[in-house]
Amino acid sequence: MAKQEKVGINVKKNDNLSEWYQQLVLKAELAEYSPVKGFMVIRPRGYYIWERIQDDLNKRISKKGVDNAYFPLLIPESFFKKEAKHAKGFKPEVAWVANREEERLAIRPTSETIMYDSYSRWIRSWRDLPLRINQWCNVIRWETKATRLFLRTREFLWQEGHCVYETKKGCDKETMGYLEDYEKLCKELLCLPVIKGKKSESEKFAGAYYTLTIESIMPDGKSLQCGTSHNLGQGFAESFGINFLDRNEKKALPWQNSWGISTRLIGALSMVHGDDKGLVLPPKIVKNKVVVVPIIFDKEKEKVLVEAKKIVKSLKKCNAILDDREGYSAGWKFNEWELKGIPIRIEIGPKDLVNKEVILVRRDNGKKEGIKIKDLSKKIDEELNNMQKDLYENAKKLMDEKIVSVGEFKELEKAINDKKVGKTGFCGDVKCESKFDPLNAKVLCIDFKENKCKCVVCGKETNNLAYIGKSY
Amino acid sequence: MAKQEKVGINVKKNDNLSEWYQQLVLKAELAEYSPVKGFMVIRPRGYYIWERIQDDLNKRISKKGVDNAYFPLLIPESFFKKEAKHAKGFKPEVAWVANREEERLAIRPTSETIMYDSYSRWIRSWRDLPLRINQWCNVIRWETKATRLFLRTREFLWQEGHCVYETKKGCDKETMGYLEDYEKLCKELLCLPVIKGKKSESEKFAGAYYTLTIESIMPDGKSLQCGTSHNLGQGFAESFGINFLDRNEKKALPWQNSWGISTRLIGALSMVHGDDKGLVLPPKIVKNKVVVVPIIFDKEKEKVLVEAKKIVKSLKKCNAILDDREGYSAGWKFNEWELKGIPIRIEIGPKDLVNKEVILVRRDNGKKEGIKIKDLSKKIDEELNNMQKDLYENAKKLMDEKIVSVGEFKELEKAINDKKVGKTGFCGDVKCESKFDPLNAKVLCIDFKENKCKCVVCGKETNNLAYIGKSY
Repeated sequence: MAKQEKVGINVKKNDNLSEWYQQLVLKAELAEYSPVKGFMVIRPRGYYIWERIQDDLNKRISKKGVDNAYFPLLIPESFFKKEAKHAKGFKPEVAWVANREEERLAIRPTSETIMYDSYSRWIRSWRDLPLRINQWCNVIRWETKATRLFLRTREFLWQEGHCVYETKKGCDKETMGYLEDYEKLCKELLCLPVIKGKKSESEKFAGAYYTLTIESIMPDGKSLQCGTSHNLGQGFAESFGINFLDRNEKKALPWQNSWGISTRLIGALSMVHGDDKGLVLPPKIVKNKVVVVPIIFDKEKEKVLVEAKKIVKSLKKCNAILDDREGYSAGWKFNEWELKGIPIRIEIGPKDLVNKEVILVRRDNGKKEGIKIKDLSKKIDEELNNMQKDLYENAKKLMDEKIVSVGEFKELEKAINDKKVGKTGFCGDVKCESKFDPLNAKVLCIDFKENKCKCVVCGKETNNLAYIGKSY
Repeated sequence: MAKQEKVGINVKKNDNLSEWYQQLVLKAELAEYSPVKGFMVIRPRGYYIWERIQDDLNKRISKKGVDNAYFPLLIPESFFKKEAKHAKGFKPEVAWVANREEERLAIRPTSETIMYDSYSRWIRSWRDLPLRINQWCNVIRWETKATRLFLRTREFLWQEGHCVYETKKGCDKETMGYLEDYEKLCKELLCLPVIKGKKSESEKFAGAYYTLTIESIMPDGKSLQCGTSHNLGQGFAESFGINFLDRNEKKALPWQNSWGISTRLIGALSMVHGDDKGLVLPPKIVKNKVVVVPIIFDKEKEKVLVEAKKIVKSLKKCNAILDDREGYSAGWKFNEWELKGIPIRIEIGPKDLVNKEVILVRRDNGKKEGIKIKDLSKKIDEELNNMQKDLYENAKKLMDEKIVSVGEFKELEKAINDKKVGKTGFCGDVKCESKFDPLNAKVLCIDFKENKCKCVVCGKETNNLAYIGKSY
């Protein structure tokens, strides 16, 4: 008889979110710490989610004419230096390769510089534009803050799209378009509601003209940046000598953007949807959507097992698995599959056989229902669809509750102390922005819609309605 | 009017394979050199092929129960040292990260050591076996020989599968199974015929019990290793402390294998199928399978263009593209698309309109045929299928011609001088093996079938029928 260690997370989500999250990721086998400080191993259950994110985004961007490619891991130091603000922004985080070539080689923290070197050779004429390229790869940024699996690690996986346009207008439009793709991916695939907006000047990407962002609000009221899309302006083009003959045969500088999402999303969705029992996952990103647990007593064992196997076979399309392990109680098995976030559990015992039915249990809301076996396949499709919808709706409600409109600075202070995000006017001035530091808060983003309001710090009239809060 | 630079490769494949190959890869835009010596940029046309290889292999191995995962890029030096032969084999090629942590960190040249560290924690009981994990990633090996795009670069993309089994028998069987997957992928997707066999003791992977390989014979008679599958024995398990409680509750050492293919395959298929006009690609790995080139004269321009657009729309499923660029002659366009390996060209001019037909031209054999427009879609499906078959058959014939059975050493010498591969007896002795060095040849692999024959060097009886030749 196998040991039946207690499975599950031994701290409540509401009591200690940080410890709960760490146990969740480790015990649900999404990832583990690597022996090298700051690095992580993405285990199959976590990587499967990443592959679904890749498939989903690839479909969206390929429709927009984006091609995937791959650029070198190592970047010459001189490339970084070409765009001054960019170089400064990444300098502390770069890992270098030990004395292999005369020039120092960086392990990419991002690929603008190495890609734009190629672009300067590939682009000659307006006919070559827009150029839209994306790569899926690993990047290294030598974080000094404490590691948090998926949320802050020295290596992570991401995609970085890098496009070049004839005009500012074309660039603006598509910079927004990719952000909207991210928003849709978060909603439709990951059931993750986000707020979107523009970063303030001090929060924008190193070297960018402006940065757009989607942010997800975690249960502790802290915001997690989930994806960004930068209009890079013409600065990189100038530094890297990217220019083209325009429609009037004149030499011109193009406009560029870059946009990225990363494995961080796996952390975001786990933290938002999970509960005290473990992972709760949107059905679309789970390989085995159903687990069948036969409730076995010695007498009727064979009959129950035969029926359970038949059911598993009939549910091939949702990759149903059978848990017929001996030496584990049914309750222990329930706990394990709840921990791992299998969306639907089917229980079948001798009594159910007589009634030709099974018990169906939904992971997200625990709803139990007796279902006739003949209706099972249809019912499961329905419940998986409902679960995908419900997860988003519930998360959206929770997020909305965490955002409060405030007018006075004191109100903002209270909101942040209450683990909420304040929505309020912000004039854009760096001096005013610095007043959020003592609250450990910052401007998460500025709403795209213009709203006449007053700056929460200086009281000046402004059109910027900003989200202000703590962040990961 | 745009410039019409001459497109195409300016050297013949038969005259100078090496120069032809380099021009092919660069001009067909599969890849380009990176500013960092030894590195390459995989351009969209090349990366698209890699994505098809990934899709194909993922399907094959997922059926076998393999899960994808991701392990860290950086590996502590102490991990390498744990398996002595492995450490020795990779030592000269490892790139290290400059002083970030106390212990030296290697950029992975392969991931056995970092993965097996995790495995030692994940595996407890025979119930955890077999464990089958694969990762798609980049690796770095600091090659000192001259760079050849796709064939020899310091960074390449690959997959590495790493499985753990209870018994030698299970390990043997699947080690062969993955090699067979590679063989099928090469044949069915890439139209690439291979020979397969076992590596000699001196050619096996550093730390392996034995190595199986598939090899493709290039037009110059040199062999290109296209994929390997290693039975690693129990050595790594011992070094990394991977053990399990077996079915009798006794502690036992498992058996392991690892297996990989890389972006090198893109080089292999390009070199085998390409011709003096440029790339020839199996239709299955080309995004735009058809290009429609309208033959335009001023008078009938509109009519022809309208029909051409209609045709392109009707061929959506093969991602047909329209080349209606102005300022380029039809002939120039033909050359360009031939260079880039588009499988089928459709020409349509005013005369064709009258007859309600078009000209269909196949890239691989140049066959031209008039086709009624109403039959076009069906005909294209047929021709794409035929092309996929023909490319393999032709490559197989060429490969077979390059392999000659030889009995005496002199015959082997002649075969190799004639740019062929010798198939002959080899006793397995290192002393005999060293006699191939002066020919710049080596044992490519030993046939799986036992064949009574005599060693081409010492004349001793042996069961080993070996392929001996030059290699990349």
